Amino acid sequence: MSDVLIIMGSISDSEVSKKVETTLDRFGVDYTVRILSAHRTHDELQQLLDSNQELNVIIAIAGKAAHLPGVVAAMSNALVIGVPVKTSLMGGMDSLLSIVQMPKGVPVSTVGINAGENAALLAIRALMIRDEPLKEKYQSYVKEMRDKVLEDDLNYRR
Amino acid sequence: MSDVLIIMGSISDSEVSKKVETTLDRFGVDYTVRILSAHRTHDELQQLLDSNQELNVIIAIAGKAAHLPGVVAAMSNALVIGVPVKTSLMGGMDSLLSIVQMPKGVPVSTVGINAGENAALLAIRALMIRDEPLKEKYQSYVKEMRDKVLEDDLNYRR
Amino acid sequence: MSDVLIIMGSISDSEVSKKVETTLDRFGVDYTVRILSAHRTHDELQQLLDSNQELNVIIAIAGKAAHLPGVVAAMSNALVIGVPVKTSLMGGMDSLLSIVQMPKGVPVSTVGINAGENAALLAIRALMIRDEPLKEKYQSYVKEMRDKVLEDDLNYRR
Amino acid sequence: MSDVLIIMGSISDSEVSKKVETTLDRFGVDYTVRILSAHRTHDELQQLLDSNQELNVIIAIAGKAAHLPGVVAAMSNALVIGVPVKTSLMGGMDSLLSIVQMPKGVPVSTVGINAGENAALLAIRALMIRDEPLKEKYQSYVKEMRDKVLEDDLNYRR
Amino acid sequence: MSDVLIIMGSISDSEVSKKVETTLDRFGVDYTVRILSAHRTHDELQQLLDSNQELNVIIAIAGKAAHLPGVVAAMSNALVIGVPVKTSLMGGMDSLLSIVQMPKGVPVSTVGINAGENAALLAIRALMIRDEPLKEKYQSYVKEMRDKVLEDDLNYRR
Amino acid sequence: MSDVLIIMGSISDSEVSKKVETTLDRFGVDYTVRILSAHRTHDELQQLLDSNQELNVIIAIAGKAAHLPGVVAAMSNALVIGVPVKTSLMGGMDSLLSIVQMPKGVPVSTVGINAGENAALLAIRALMIRDEPLKEKYQSYVKEMRDKVLEDDLNYRR
Amino acid sequence: MSDVLIIMGSISDSEVSKKVETTLDRFGVDYTVRILSAHRTHDELQQLLDSNQELNVIIAIAGKAAHLPGVVAAMSNALVIGVPVKTSLMGGMDSLLSIVQMPKGVPVSTVGINAGENAALLAIRALMIRDEPLKEKYQSYVKEMRDKVLEDDLNYRR
Amino acid sequence: MSDVLIIMGSISDSEVSKKVETTLDRFGVDYTVRILSAHRTHDELQQLLDSNQELNVIIAIAGKAAHLPGVVAAMSNALVIGVPVKTSLMGGMDSLLSIVQMPKGVPVSTVGINAGENAALLAIRALMIRDEPLKEKYQSYVKEMRDKVLEDDLNYRR
Repeated sequence: MSDVLIIMGSISDSEVSKKVETTLDRFGVDYTVRILSAHRTHDELQQLLDSNQELNVIIAIAGKAAHLPGVVAAMSNALVIGVPVKTSLMGGMDSLLSIVQMPKGVPVSTVGINAGENAALLAIRALMIRDEPLKEKYQSYVKEMRDKVLEDDLNYRR
Repeated sequence: MSDVLIIMGSISDSEVSKKVETTLDRFGVDYTVRILSAHRTHDELQQLLDSNQELNVIIAIAGKAAHLPGVVAAMSNALVIGVPVKTSLMGGMDSLLSIVQMPKGVPVSTVGINAGENAALLAIRALMIRDEPLKEKYQSYVKEMRDKVLEDDLNYRR
Repeated sequence: MSDVLIIMGSISDSEVSKKVETTLDRFGVDYTVRILSAHRTHDELQQLLDSNQELNVIIAIAGKAAHLPGVVAAMSNALVIGVPVKTSLMGGMDSLLSIVQMPKGVPVSTVGINAGENAALLAIRALMIRDEPLKEKYQSYVKEMRDKVLEDDLNYRR
Repeated sequence: MSDVLIIMGSISDSEVSKKVETTLDRFGVDYTVRILSAHRTHDELQQLLDSNQELNVIIAIAGKAAHLPGVVAAMSNALVIGVPVKTSLMGGMDSLLSIVQMPKGVPVSTVGINAGENAALLAIRALMIRDEPLKEKYQSYVKEMRDKVLEDDLNYRR
Repeated sequence: MSDVLIIMGSISDSEVSKKVETTLDRFGVDYTVRILSAHRTHDELQQLLDSNQELNVIIAIAGKAAHLPGVVAAMSNALVIGVPVKTSLMGGMDSLLSIVQMPKGVPVSTVGINAGENAALLAIRALMIRDEPLKEKYQSYVKEMRDKVLEDDLNYRR
Repeated sequence: MSDVLIIMGSISDSEVSKKVETTLDRFGVDYTVRILSAHRTHDELQQLLDSNQELNVIIAIAGKAAHLPGVVAAMSNALVIGVPVKTSLMGGMDSLLSIVQMPKGVPVSTVGINAGENAALLAIRALMIRDEPLKEKYQSYVKEMRDKVLEDDLNYRR
Repeated sequence: MSDVLIIMGSISDSEVSKKVETTLDRFGVDYTVRILSAHRTHDELQQLLDSNQELNVIIAIAGKAAHLPGVVAAMSNALVIGVPVKTSLMGGMDSLLSIVQMPKGVPVSTVGINAGENAALLAIRALMIRDEPLKEKYQSYVKEMRDKVLEDDLNYRR
Repeated sequence: MSDVLIIMGSISDSEVSKKVETTLDRFGVDYTVRILSAHRTHDELQQLLDSNQELNVIIAIAGKAAHLPGVVAAMSNALVIGVPVKTSLMGGMDSLLSIVQMPKGVPVSTVGINAGENAALLAIRALMIRDEPLKEKYQSYVKEMRDKVLEDDLNYRR
């Protein structure tokens, strides 16, 4: 099994998954992507998680009454990062609240709406707990972000 | 098994359950009440539903990121009625959206926030599909509600 | 009269009605569709419901201050399923709240915004209370949904 | 029939009705108060309005999925003023949206949440269209409000 | 002065004003349209209202922190109908709350977001208090709306 | 005239005004407090502002459809700081949107709900533009806030 | 250093910055524009503000969890004007609340969503505290706005 | 330095911190608690984080325009868990959005409003990445939660 498991609830969430994948690629983090609905393919989901109990980080992407991240957090003891997908209702408020407001005992680490990059970065920060070389890559990423802002700043001022 | 199964996600939802129970009692509808969390006692929940596949109507009560009704609707083919419990966030908007905005294919029949009575009445309307005597009781309930309003009206005018 | 009556409040809601119709068609459930406003054609609505008191399931579709489902639930003792239509105000929050927050005694079974398929599926689950063959069709629908997810999963992984 | 008809949907709305009544009393405007639910006592409501077609102004008070003002506006051609009652959901947002977002053709004149005084004042402004003496009373009311502010201002400054 | 004065806060609100105008035209009601900002042209607004104190009905259209209807209601004793204009913030929630939540003593009769037709219809209902022929036109309008729904209903069923 | 003019829309807003006053007192800034409604005492408000055109900073406190700050910003060219007062509707969202979403050309400097201290501090930052000694007081205030946090930190750790 | 410093959190906010710049240009106010992220380039931001402590007015533009204005208000004692940028979540409610609801002691002067013009106008009103000629320009701007409305009014009436 | 650093923005957030502390105590996880404001004590915060760069997990608790978690996530490469504190505005929506909607590149792992226990549990799940014995404790915690629900279930049924 890879270091990170990405699960999206439906193929329609693949645009957000691509953001996660691209960011993990940049850091050379190994990942697996699966499409599995918490409701329609519950058994396959359970089986996948049961047979990969050594998994440390899972990113779960879902929209509307988005139960996938919470269900995964109940099935697994991994760090589960939930990504709410934008919907037409208040711009994704339904997805956000269904993920972040989890009851006591079943925690989901929630990022912003459609925030695939930040989900990947949280995964990397968690993996850094035992992966020293990843820390250096993170440092260079932070520097790169900073340089990008400074370059934009310079260009805007001409 | 009774005609209606009531499941609440936590003992803290019992106030809403009591409203459901009182209303079902009034109609002489037989019910069973269980406290089972979708996340903490998933297996017990699955087992309960698997061994009661003839169940027609289930009322599921839950708050915050309220996954219980949706999880039950995925586990069972019964008519699942979801009751969102009031919370401090916008008065229960989190509970409501987590229940009503279910993705395509896993329908939950949602009532208002804390609306235990209406959940029971929906259950009764569904049971009336094959239970003729219940229809008469419903007629008398409608009349009673009407009489109560008219009595209030009379009293208010003195 | 058919097994299910679909009422939309205005011709502008027909896109949502089509979703209901297509889903019912798939299950071979007989239905009738009507366009009737709770406010503009109240008498015709009352007459339709009075002359079809044996009706078990009604799906009512409406938007904005969406009174149609509640008015139908007051006129009939059938199971009334309300479908809130998307609007520009917070993406349909007005429609949702006007349908789901019904006062005690007049219950409406509410689904998500524009969720025509789920409305049809709720109707089918209710009809299954006395229609055994429908249960088998539902089982095969559930399996089909599951297979669709698994196929998407397989394709995404290549 | 009086000049103004006040209808509240339930006895639990009487606190708001009292504000309307007190304000109308202050102007010597004659009114009738009734408790009638749009859903539970539809026929009595229809009958009341049919037999009072000369009515010019109706104030309808209701909460949650508040259909009463809209239903009255469909039954009558009077100016219908709707008062949303405070609820626990976002402080009455459900009541407000169910009243103000009426579809085209069935207009309701909406005031703020629990704003019984302003409902009465709108009624009075409408009655002033043909009632000259009422205009003078209104002038003195405006002056009184102004004097009250100026007095508070003076007192606060000592 | 005409029977109805329409004031919009900015030329950008003219689309909503056109809906009001078209509806008033249909009833043969005489109206005047003005563009006057409560803030930028306060004196012109005051002067217009002072010199037309016999005005009975004013329709004020405004968006965002929409003060125009409330300011007009303070300047005049006419029935002031406020129309909130759609904005990008929650679809016009800013406009709606700035108009409907007026403090005690300065009432604004609020309609739904962009609901120009309903604003005109409220004006007409108010004018009907002293204009008998308008009542007949209103009756025929109600019938026309009803016929339109029934025609749509017939066509949809083929 | 004082350096800062505080205007509240109603005596019921005095709790928030007290916060402003206490903070200004701490900095030795001279202020005047007035209770004046934008709607009920428009002329007195206009007169006050006209006769104090040299005023640089005004703090306006109001709730619900809170027009006072915007009206003052239209009447005066001073820096107008608006303080939205908490209400029952979403905790003051009506007050906030009615103040902050001002149309182009009439700017209001808005602070958080009930945030009387921050309104005073904004006033002081503006006055510092020409008042050098105030800068030193501000520096010591910043230091005091910092010391308070560090003291709480020390105490919490024991 | 210029009279006004404009800081945007990202190049993607430049559309709003342009509105600020155009308005300041119209008044002949000298300004500097910088792109600096509160999080990614914190040190550069601190350094910029430390070396320009005589700055009186700063306009900070940011979206989503918009921390820039608050961070700048903590780093500097200038009057900090925050401009929330429109996002897909409720139309920018995240940006607005992250800026306006600042805790006690760190005040941000907040304008409406995307309201670059009003931010510039607030800056100008603050600068007018010590800049007499600017007052005259402001007067002529107010007159121009008024004339524009009156012209629109005239044109609309033909 | 301990395994987990808890930072609250103000002593008023200590009730939520206590929930975190109690949960970490139960797992025997070592922690340090600090009160440090992102704005008022920025330098002390920076210094604390700079001198503890080996820190893996930080829990940051803050309310209103809650910048603390995001600022910490920018200062440190640890996994930063943000806990939004309940406020009067929509029950803490301001705190939630200010924490969860972080811009790309500065990720915060957000839990529900006031959800101190879940923040601690997320921290523990992250620490489990390299701490095998913690996994066993987690298993027994999950079992305990399950047993508590089953006991409540048994008691409720008598």
